[in-house]
Amino acid sequence: MKALLIVAHGSRRQTSNEEVRQITAQVEKLAGDDFDWVGSGFLELAGPSIPQGIQQFIDAGATEVVVLPYFLSAGRHVAEDIPAQIEQVQVLNPQVIITQTSYLGSANGVGDLLLGLACEA
Amino acid sequence: MKALLIVAHGSRRQTSNEEVRQITAQVEKLAGDDFDWVGSGFLELAGPSIPQGIQQFIDAGATEVVVLPYFLSAGRHVAEDIPAQIEQVQVLNPQVIITQTSYLGSANGVGDLLLGLACEA
Repeated sequence: MKALLIVAHGSRRQTSNEEVRQITAQVEKLAGDDFDWVGSGFLELAGPSIPQGIQQFIDAGATEVVVLPYFLSAGRHVAEDIPAQIEQVQVLNPQVIITQTSYLGSANGVGDLLLGLACEA
Repeated sequence: MKALLIVAHGSRRQTSNEEVRQITAQVEKLAGDDFDWVGSGFLELAGPSIPQGIQQFIDAGATEVVVLPYFLSAGRHVAEDIPAQIEQVQVLNPQVIITQTSYLGSANGVGDLLLGLACEA
């Protein structure tokens, strides 16, 4: 049983957090059988936290959790903070496979998306 | 003559600014005849600034400049700060058409990109 947690920074602006939840709902629809659960987690300023989000999936029966950073650049949050928060849950649940994917900004296809937006203008 | 300026927040971390310049170079390659120039600009902490970036295109002969926010959410930067900086250049160059597109996070296709990253894991 496989889960996907999309993790964002979190914002004081609730509509920004809501945007993350909306894109998460969109990915959940697209995912079909690829993931049994899809949810969001936040580094700060919103909930659930990343450890809470992962633990909720494990409590529901997930044996594998994929953590995807919804970030544009490979800064400290992506390189250090998210791995450290994953590790907190990993040590409590050594039987679960928890992996972190590359961040959104690194995805092939971002260039095409940008050009698409630019050409709609 | 049409130009595209991809605008990011800017970071103290130079590699993050470099990532924006790299994605800009990628869009430039993809753009073909859609844009005569493609460049990047930054709201703060890196250069060129947004007004400088737009003005450089105008000085080179651009009659139309499209400004694309490389941001994930529709916060104050996208809704207020970028339009205010565009306006500074627009009043000095009323003959040039300067438009701001929707921001990256709003693009159709972000969900597909995320699912692609998640499934590579």
